[in-house]
Formats: sequence, structure tokens, C-alpha cells
Amino acid sequence: MSSLPPHSASLRPFFTPNGVAVIGASRDPTKLSYAIMGNLTDPGHAYAGPIYPVNPKASEVCGLKCYADIADVPDPVELAVLVIPAALVPAAIGACGRRGIKAAIVISGGFREIGPEGAAREQQMVEIAQRYGVRIVGPNGIGVIDTHTPLDTTFVRGMPPKGHIAFLSQSGALCGGVIDWTIGRSIGFSRFLSVGNEADVNESDVLTFLAADETSRVITLYLEDVKGGPAFVDALRSAAARKPVLALKTGRTASGQAATASHTGALAGAHAAFRAACKQTGVIELETMQGLFNAALALAYQPLPAGNRIALVTNSGGPAALAADTLEAAGLRLAHTSPAVQDHLTGVLGADVQVMGPVDLLGGGGERHYRIALDAILADPACDGVLAILTPHMLVQPPAIVEAIAAAAAGQESAPPGESHPPKPVLACLLGDASLEAAFRAAHAAHIPAYAFPEDAVHAFGALWQRGRWLRTAGDRGREAGDRRQGTGVQGRLAAGVAMQTALADPYAGLVAAYGIPTPPERLATTPEEAAAMAREIGFPVVLKIVSPDILHKSDIGGVILDVRDAAAARAGFATLVARATTTQPAAVVRRVQVQKMVTGGQEVIVGVKRDPIFGPLVMFGLGGIYVEALADVSFRLAPLTEFDAWEMIGEVRSAKLLAGVRGAAPADRPALVDAIVRIGQLATERPEIAELDVNPLLVLPEGQGVVAVDVRVIIDPRLIPRCDKSQ
Amino acid sequence: MSSLPPHSASLRPFFTPNGVAVIGASRDPTKLSYAIMGNLTDPGHAYAGPIYPVNPKASEVCGLKCYADIADVPDPVELAVLVIPAALVPAAIGACGRRGIKAAIVISGGFREIGPEGAAREQQMVEIAQRYGVRIVGPNGIGVIDTHTPLDTTFVRGMPPKGHIAFLSQSGALCGGVIDWTIGRSIGFSRFLSVGNEADVNESDVLTFLAADETSRVITLYLEDVKGGPAFVDALRSAAARKPVLALKTGRTASGQAATASHTGALAGAHAAFRAACKQTGVIELETMQGLFNAALALAYQPLPAGNRIALVTNSGGPAALAADTLEAAGLRLAHTSPAVQDHLTGVLGADVQVMGPVDLLGGGGERHYRIALDAILADPACDGVLAILTPHMLVQPPAIVEAIAAAAAGQESAPPGESHPPKPVLACLLGDASLEAAFRAAHAAHIPAYAFPEDAVHAFGALWQRGRWLRTAGDRGREAGDRRQGTGVQGRLAAGVAMQTALADPYAGLVAAYGIPTPPERLATTPEEAAAMAREIGFPVVLKIVSPDILHKSDIGGVILDVRDAAAARAGFATLVARATTTQPAAVVRRVQVQKMVTGGQEVIVGVKRDPIFGPLVMFGLGGIYVEALADVSFRLAPLTEFDAWEMIGEVRSAKLLAGVRGAAPADRPALVDAIVRIGQLATERPEIAELDVNPLLVLPEGQGVVAVDVRVIIDPRLIPRCDKSQ
Repeated sequence: MSSLPPHSASLRPFFTPNGVAVIGASRDPTKLSYAIMGNLTDPGHAYAGPIYPVNPKASEVCGLKCYADIADVPDPVELAVLVIPAALVPAAIGACGRRGIKAAIVISGGFREIGPEGAAREQQMVEIAQRYGVRIVGPNGIGVIDTHTPLDTTFVRGMPPKGHIAFLSQSGALCGGVIDWTIGRSIGFSRFLSVGNEADVNESDVLTFLAADETSRVITLYLEDVKGGPAFVDALRSAAARKPVLALKTGRTASGQAATASHTGALAGAHAAFRAACKQTGVIELETMQGLFNAALALAYQPLPAGNRIALVTNSGGPAALAADTLEAAGLRLAHTSPAVQDHLTGVLGADVQVMGPVDLLGGGGERHYRIALDAILADPACDGVLAILTPHMLVQPPAIVEAIAAAAAGQESAPPGESHPPKPVLACLLGDASLEAAFRAAHAAHIPAYAFPEDAVHAFGALWQRGRWLRTAGDRGREAGDRRQGTGVQGRLAAGVAMQTALADPYAGLVAAYGIPTPPERLATTPEEAAAMAREIGFPVVLKIVSPDILHKSDIGGVILDVRDAAAARAGFATLVARATTTQPAAVVRRVQVQKMVTGGQEVIVGVKRDPIFGPLVMFGLGGIYVEALADVSFRLAPLTEFDAWEMIGEVRSAKLLAGVRGAAPADRPALVDAIVRIGQLATERPEIAELDVNPLLVLPEGQGVVAVDVRVIIDPRLIPRCDKSQ
Repeated sequence: MSSLPPHSASLRPFFTPNGVAVIGASRDPTKLSYAIMGNLTDPGHAYAGPIYPVNPKASEVCGLKCYADIADVPDPVELAVLVIPAALVPAAIGACGRRGIKAAIVISGGFREIGPEGAAREQQMVEIAQRYGVRIVGPNGIGVIDTHTPLDTTFVRGMPPKGHIAFLSQSGALCGGVIDWTIGRSIGFSRFLSVGNEADVNESDVLTFLAADETSRVITLYLEDVKGGPAFVDALRSAAARKPVLALKTGRTASGQAATASHTGALAGAHAAFRAACKQTGVIELETMQGLFNAALALAYQPLPAGNRIALVTNSGGPAALAADTLEAAGLRLAHTSPAVQDHLTGVLGADVQVMGPVDLLGGGGERHYRIALDAILADPACDGVLAILTPHMLVQPPAIVEAIAAAAAGQESAPPGESHPPKPVLACLLGDASLEAAFRAAHAAHIPAYAFPEDAVHAFGALWQRGRWLRTAGDRGREAGDRRQGTGVQGRLAAGVAMQTALADPYAGLVAAYGIPTPPERLATTPEEAAAMAREIGFPVVLKIVSPDILHKSDIGGVILDVRDAAAARAGFATLVARATTTQPAAVVRRVQVQKMVTGGQEVIVGVKRDPIFGPLVMFGLGGIYVEALADVSFRLAPLTEFDAWEMIGEVRSAKLLAGVRGAAPADRPALVDAIVRIGQLATERPEIAELDVNPLLVLPEGQGVVAVDVRVIIDPRLIPRCDKSQ
């Protein structure tokens, strides 16, 4: 733990305290504090250190001496749990600080979540805590569980089985359901924490702490709203570099955002930004609660596959077919055992056993058959992992088969040196419920993750594969130092835009040019004659565009004239544009006409930036024209981004197949596109005053010919312009 | 039952027989037949009629008199269950027939599934059965369960609870898992049947029978391969007209098809055709086992919603947010209670209760709160249904809350006349497992479908909505008689194509024209002069296209010249095309050049037909160019199709938004497109010799201007040309 930043290291007493005081401990069984005392002292998982109930009205609670005041509590005491009316909390925190307690869990509600009065109280509490150096978890949370210490400061009935999954929740109430479910399904947890209102300790602090915790092999997150975006992204990145991090976040849809906002009072961040953060940090995002814990179970107990070829061993064709049908959606494919393994299995198990595709042992498949099949397949270089499926019937003993599966999985490590290979993952599908309780228990005891339905098992396998692939590509993903910094003149451009007090088109072309993205030669003309002269200088054909702070979408008013081929046309074009602008928008201030070299050919794409209030600049990529607008075929990443990120963005956009050249079209210059995306991300990162930016279109020319930013639209937030900019 | 077709009515003895003989009943507890006797006589669900073990080697089995031969069995006996070696089965079926038994379940394996020898045996068995009018379920299946009779002819441990979901499975082994799961989760079934090899009784027969069964409110299907496509589609259509039909079919992906094929020896039909069949018959397709039964539970016990506005009532924000996030994917949206209801709830339950978005009763929400909230919301015209979510904690009594939910759901029917409305559906999410067993049991007993996870509950709600919407649109979907029959000359065109012995382009334009789809004026020229003359006659500009049986994709060899504007260009074009064809494909037989009026404008779409081996002609629709090829943005329906089907096809294609007119483009003539799709379906239905047909592009002109089939490609199966065609 010594490697933790001090801020996170101070969380240690929340999980492994030496002495716990419960302020507000009650003898009334209908009170939450009674339930907390019950959990702390529960013989099944009692906290082993000293427990000090604090309550001026009692002398004894749960058989323990009760103290009238926290000041009276003797050493050692490292953690206080507060279950008292909100109004009393700030003073009690001060008392804890004076007593030398540096960690407090505030269970009480009545703070920010109830409105301004509560928010003021929360602020007061935090100020007192900071004065004494007290860290606070909560308020309005259910507290902490550590199954290894053991410690349970919650009022939830029952403790999850001891295990290796950590859970961090932004909803307290949800934890009750999760605990109940994990007990019923014997899924083991290590640490379990509800952050409540996050008045002090927030999700980033806890994440960093859990990343360093050796009992937690996997971290699962339930999130509703993320506060410090960039700090949280950093915490995700470093946690996911150490162990698998799985996230389930609400607010994916408008309805979900409405539901989240109404119950926490917080505005949900845009989900696209969160999703991008997961992709860029290696966090695996899940979309259902069951999927979250199914994946966590696999990642906690099984090795990662080296590839995505998953073998199926079964005693029934149906569930194997259902599993096979799910493979593709999980990024996997069906392994086909090598001919030698097929011959071996047919020889040993008989000709009835099907060895092509899923290995089907048929109804007669018993523990011996499973063991033989698994041993052979796990040693087969054609397979990267095995899902063993068992359908119960009168003649099988499910627990014995589970043992055979577990023995085969474990046996991989004891293979003779010549035959050894890194262990491959083994998961189980035990199809059913009523008669399989013992089999499920045996599976979990042997660390074979087991699922009732084949589809769930396959998706859990998908998470193993996703994690493995992330780790293998980690080197390539490394953030480049990059020589994509801005050139000169940027600040002048920005100031010019701001001077016009609004969103402006092409004057910002120079902005992207300063970041090394080619733009067509262009000039700004104020008279027809100037337009003609500039066009001659640039070289025909040119494009003429109206430039006015009042006209954002030029093409809507006919404000663009393409393919202007001589000086006369340039002069006439200037007049036409000004006339159109005046006719359609009499109030518009028409200042200038842009004369731009006309670029033809290439594939139109759009690269945009929007600043997310939580996560910062979010870069969007999509194909030009209807692909973005009608099909919403786009991808997002947070800036700054690496080349790897940009390649992934292109890979996620279905219509980007067009860039590879379809039906004889020349392939587009994708490396140049990647470079441009990274540069735009760099620009957005370094210029916080840019609220929005659209390069539309960015023309991607044929391979080797680069890209051209034909039109650039920028919206500036004048409040964010640096006062003194070194680039000027 | 009297309304059933005779073929299906003969299935009655499989479910409600008067007397059952078990041929091969054994006293050996390790034998399947012993397990079957055990299930028939199990005190928990014993068959009430006479049971006759038949076994020459025993005098008594399970305390029942055993008969040496089926001929010795006394009346009444309507059903025989055969559990004897395969080789003895055909003779035993004959013996059953002579004894007057008209229904036999063959559990034994060793038939078609083991290869040619078994297939011959199966054929022999069927011939004997037909001779005596015996219907057979199986072989190689696990038999039949009827929980209401009760009757259990399977060897699977345990009988599902009595209920109203029927299950038909093409996998026998899978049933063991399903039964085990349904017992564990107390999900009630009515009839349960494994069809085995379907030597006689097939999925269509059973479906028709279950549709007429009053104890079965919902039919669930697990399918691996469908045999008689059109007959099955008819059976699906009439069953789904009477009650909800839910289907889970393997073979959705290549891996799934491989898995299915290897274990049944049957070729899986293309999934696109099956999916289309579901959409056109109102069958709800599910993609997971759990999803199948989750949806069935909702449909068996809850009314259908009149709309898709679902209210959430919860005691915890997190699960409500997860539910809300899932609504959209299930076709639903979050209901917002009306202001009057909000005021009422705030007044009665206090200001803390959140009434915007999900109604959050907070941790203090008990049975009274749930009842009040549900009563108010169920009477609120702004809500079409309610999902009640309960997260357990120390201070709630889950079974009591379930009772309150059930009482509110039931109370809808007793509302005073002025306030009454059709009952709205109520589902429950009981988040957890360990402490909720009693609550789940209470929910199922009260016919409130309950789910452990909010996402599952929402998807089940989605099935209710899907079913309701289907029934409401049933009138519009009705099959039109239509005046879209073929015109004249069709057979001549087909014959000409066949004479050329291969796939051929535009000569088939006349084929679609005969079905009323406009085509551009065109001629076939054999000399440059002829091309020029024809072009003049048609009117410039024209398009010239090479016509050769050896060249399928003309544009790949430059075989199309657009925008030919005068006679000289037409002459030159002819020469160019012939030269190109000769250069690139010296062996190609170049017969003619097509001269076609050039049509410009409009949106290019593709309408194609492919004949599915199981389901017949499958019509595809997509947008021209890269949309079909690179994005696979297409939809399918089986022919013949209705206008409603065609409108739905257009609605499913994302890029079809372009047809509505994007960014000022004129909207395309969608009614004419719908008409053309229906006509092409009609054509495919009436001309079985057409193996494939592509109209690519079909130009959809601006509204009111219709469509034009610019290029038609047809592949004929010469074996299927009718000998004597009336249209000639």
C-alpha cells in the first residue's frame, strides 16, 4: 500500500481499521444503527478488533460497553460510523477529529440530496473534516464491507461470501439487492463500498485504493454520475492497467438519464464520453447488472485466453447450439478441435460422441467423459478456452461432473514440461436450477465460474477475451509524445473569431493548419475585383463562400459557389453571394467572401469536437453526408488521443469500409486521416476556449496523398481564452 | 377441439389419454423406462388413468401388473410409450396398431440420427404406423408432459409446476435443463413436448394443437431446424392469431448453424427467412433461453398494455435507473405520471417521495406506500403499465409488498364504473435472491411475473407491448387479394432466358414489366447501325449495355456506357462495348447490346429475391450502392407479402431515411416502392423457376412519379419451369 498516493492511502482505515466506533448505536431493533451493530458483531463474520458503541442514552449495546461521547472512547480506534440525525453530524465529525479518528463513514441522510439546506450542512461537515484531516465516506451511503478483514458497517442483511470481486456503488440501496443476490448465488466479494453523496471520498479515490488491494482481483463499478472526469479517467486507466475493471453506468438513454437525474439531483454526463473513456482506458463496459457480475466472476478466477477460439463440451446439443449462436456477439468463435484430438476422442469415447464443432458427449456423458474431453481439448493448440455445458438428467451426477471439469482445468498446470502451455480458461454452464444447487456450490468452490444459461456463460467468456486483447495491445496504445503541437498564429486566429462574437466559418481554417492539417489555399476578398485577383493567384478552379458572422450554414442560403473557372466568374460570383445573403438574411453583416482552391476527389469525412462538461473534449469521427446525419454512424474518443485510438475510431464506423476502396475505388489515405484525427484532438486539448469544432468535410484523398480540411467551423467560449498566450 | 384439423385432432391422446401402456417398462432403477414409470406414478403428479407396464420378463413394475405383450393389455388404452431397442420398435408399433392404440411416443434412439441404417428403420416404422393409423411422437425425444392431466411420460426428474405456458422443443436433452430451471424458479407450464426426430408428428402439428388448448395461454418454441417451411408458417400464423407464440431458434450465426447441423444431421434453414416468418406471422422471436421464459411468464399472466408508457415504482433509485435505461431497447418509454397523480402521491406519501420520472418511495417505502402508488398510477391515463421494483433491506417485508402489488393489480377490475379502464399490466422486479424466495413464490402465486433483475423485467414488458401492437395492427396486415398478377408474355421471357442456359441480365426486364413495374424503354441491337436507330427511336440520351450470358457483372468490365447523346456516339459505343468484352473475356459470347432510355434522378434501391430451401422466396430490400454491400443495411420478408410488410421492410432499413428526403432533397415515391416490392413478391411466388432475382437499381423517383426498374438480373432453375404455362 505504500505506493498509493497519500490521498488514497488514507482510505486504509475504512477497510482494515484498528478499532471501530459506532456513533448513534441504538438498542432499538427497528433502528438502522442496531442493524449495523448486528453486522459488526455477527458471529458469522464478526469484526475482530474493538467495537465501541457511542450513545449517551445507553450503557451497553449488543453486549458491548457503550460510551456517552466519542471523546471517551479508548485506544485503539481508527474508524467512526455515524448514524445520527444529519444536524448533529458536523459537530460529531469535529469530535472525531479531536479524538484522533481520521476515517468516518456517514450513513445518515439529510444532506445535499434533500436540497440547499442539506447542501450547506454537507459543506459545513466537509470544512470541519478538512480542518482535522478526517476522511469521510458518504453521507447518505450504506458504508463498507470487507469480507477478508472481516468488517461490515452496513445495515444490509447478510454479508457476501468471501471472494475476490470488489464492488463500488454510487447507489446505496442497490447494494442491498446485490448482496442478497450474491449470497443466493454464492458469488464471493472482497470489498464492497457505497460512496453515497461523495462529499469527500469519491469514486476516483476508491478506485485507486481498490487497484492496490491484493484481495481484489476484479473491480466492478456501478455508476450514476461521474464528477471529476479527467481525474476519474486517470484513475480508471491506472486501475485497469493493474486488474480488470468492469463498469455499469446508468444514463445510457434519455429515459435512463431522466431517472438518474431525478434521484441523485446530479446531471448525468453524456454517455458517449463515458463510453469513450472506458474504451481508452481498458475498462469493460457492461449494460446489465447480471452481465456485470457474470463477467466479474470469470475474470476473478480464470486465466485470460490467448485467442478467441472457444471449444464447447456438452452432454446436450441444444444448449451448445445456443452457446455457439452467442459466440459472435461476444467477439468469439467456435473452436474446431484438431484432427488428432478428434481421433483421440473418438477412439477413447466411442464413435457416437460428436467431435466436429461442439464436442457432444450425448446423454451418456459422465464425469469420465468430461474429464477426457477437457484434458484433450485444453492441450489442443486449436482451442483457446473451453465452455463445459451440463444438462441434468436422471443418470448424471452434476457435482461429480463439476469436479471432473475443475480437475481438468487445474490439471493444465501439472502437464509435463514438453506438453505444457499457459493455462486456458474453463467456464461452466449448468443448465437448470432446482437440482443443481450442489453443483453450483462445487463449481464456485473450485473457482470454475458457472452460469445457468449458455448465453450468459458465453458473454462472460467474451469479457475474458476482451481483457486479454486489451493487455496484448497495451504497448501499441501507449500515448505518443507526438510532434503535433500547434504552430504559430493560433491565438491571432482565435482572437479574430472572438472579436466577431460568434461562431465563424473558414477564418478558422488557419487554426487546423497551425496544427499541421492541410487546408486548401484561400484568401478573403472584400470586393469583386479582389476576388478575381485572388482566384488568379490561387489558380482556377476555385470555390467562393460567403463569410458572415450571422450565417452559420452557408449552403442553406446558397452561400457557396463551386467550380469557378475564370476571373469573370469570380467577379460575378462575389456579387451573387452578397446579393443572396442580403436577400435571404437582410440583417446579416456580410463582410467578406472566401476564395478557396477547389479540391476534388477523395472521400468526405467529418471530424468534430464537442466539449463534454465532465470529461472534456470529445472527438467524433464519421463519414460525410448522410452517414453522420441520417445513420448516426459515428464513433467517439476523448482527447488527447493516440494513433491507436484513431484507428479504432475508424474501425468502429461501419461506413468507413468505404475508405478501404469499394468496387474498384482507390483506397483512401487512412494513415493521414488518423494523423489528422490525433492533431484535432491535440488542438482541442490545448485550446480549452474551443467549445465546438467541426471539420466538415475533411477530404481523405487516395493513399499517399493526404487529407484536406475543406471547411472548418468553430464555436469559441470567450470566457476561456487564456489572458496571456505564449503562442502569440 | 372439434375445430381442429383431423391431423392435429389426432394428437389429443398424447396429452389426455385414457390409459397408458409403457412398452419396455423395467424394474431396473438405472433404466430410463424405470424413471418413466416413476414419473407416471409419482404421488406428486401421478397419472390418474390406468397404467400398463409391458415387459415379457416381469410380472409387476412399480406395483402395477405387468403384461407380456401389448396385445394382452385390457381397455382402456389410448397411448403407448416405447422404451425398447430401436430394432424392435417397428414391430411394436404394428402391435400397437393392431391393439387399437392410435398414439405412440417413441423414446428410443437409434433412428435417423445415427445414419442411413437408422433412417431406414425410421422409414419402416412410419410405414407401419401409417398402415394402422398410428400417430408417432419421436423417436429420439423425451416425450410429453401435461401438468393439468397430469401426465409425465419423460425420464426427466421432476415435473414443472402447473401453469399456462406450453413448450415445444426440438431438443430433448434441453428439456431436462428447462424443467429443472422452471421448478427452481416456480414457473408454471401447461404442456411440454419434445418432438424428437419428427418422423411423423412435427412442429406444425403440435403448434396447431397447442393453439387450440385452453390451458396453454402462451406457446414457447425451441427450434433447431424447421422442416415444412410454408406449412409451418401457416401454423405459426394461425397459432399467433389466437395466443402469443414465442420462438427461440438456433442457427442465427454461422457458428450456431455449424453446431446445430452437427448435432441433428439437419441443414439449418437460413435464419433471415425464419426471422421474416416470425415478423409476418406475429411470432415474437427471442434470442436467449432466459428471455424466452421471462417473456412467456409476462404474457401468460398479465394483460397487454394499450401503449408503451411504463411507470416505475421503486424503493431504490439505482435499479429504477437501470430499468429506465433498458426501456428504449425494449420499444418502451418512461411514463411520467400526470400532475394530479403527482400531487396526490406527494400529499399522501409525503414530500420526500419522488414523483417525477420513476416514483421513488425511498428506503422507507413499505406495503402501504406501494399500494397507494400503484393504485394511483394504474388509474392514471398517462401510464400504460407499471413495473414495481423492490430492493430488500432490513426494514421491508418483501412478501407483504408483493401482496400489495398483487392487490393493486387485481383491484383494477373492481374500480367504480366511472373510473374503470381495461386492466393494465403489472410486473415486478425483486432484486436479489437469498432472502426473496418467499416473495418470488408469492408473486408467482398471485400471477405477478417477477424477475431478479430490472433489465429482464423490462424486456418481458417489451414482449407484452410487442404482442399488443401486433394485435392492434392485425387488421391492416390482412393479406390483400391484389390485382398484381402477371401480365402476358412472361413465359416467353423465361423460356428465352433458359434457352441461354444461364443467368441473364436485361432480357428479364420484361418479366418485371409484366408484373406492372415500369422499366425504361429498351431494345436489343445486334449491329452498330441498329443501336443508333433504336436510340433515335427511344430518344436520347440512352445507356448502352453489353448483353452476354457469360458476363454477369457488366460494370466490372466497362460493359455499360451512360449518357449516349447522339447516333454517332451510339454507333461508337456499340463497337467499344463489343471490343471491351472481347478483350477482357475472349471466350464470352457477345450476342447483343441493349439500348435503354437513360433515367436520371431518384434514389437507387435494390429489391431482390432468393429462394430459401425451407421457406420459399425471400424478398430483400435495401438502398443501392454501398448500403447493401458495405453496410448490409437490408431487410427481408417472405413472399407473398402485403403492403404492410413492405412498409415495415422500408422502416427497418436505416438508410431508407434517405427516401424521406434529407437536407432539402425531394421525398421519394415510397407508395410506388411499396407497390413494386409487393409485385416482386407476387412474381417470385408465381414463378417457382426463379431461383434468384435482383432489380438493381430500382430507381425511386420523387413523390408521385413512381419507380423504374433499370436493371434486372434473374437466375432460373430450368428444372422448375412448368411444362404447360397458361400465360403463354
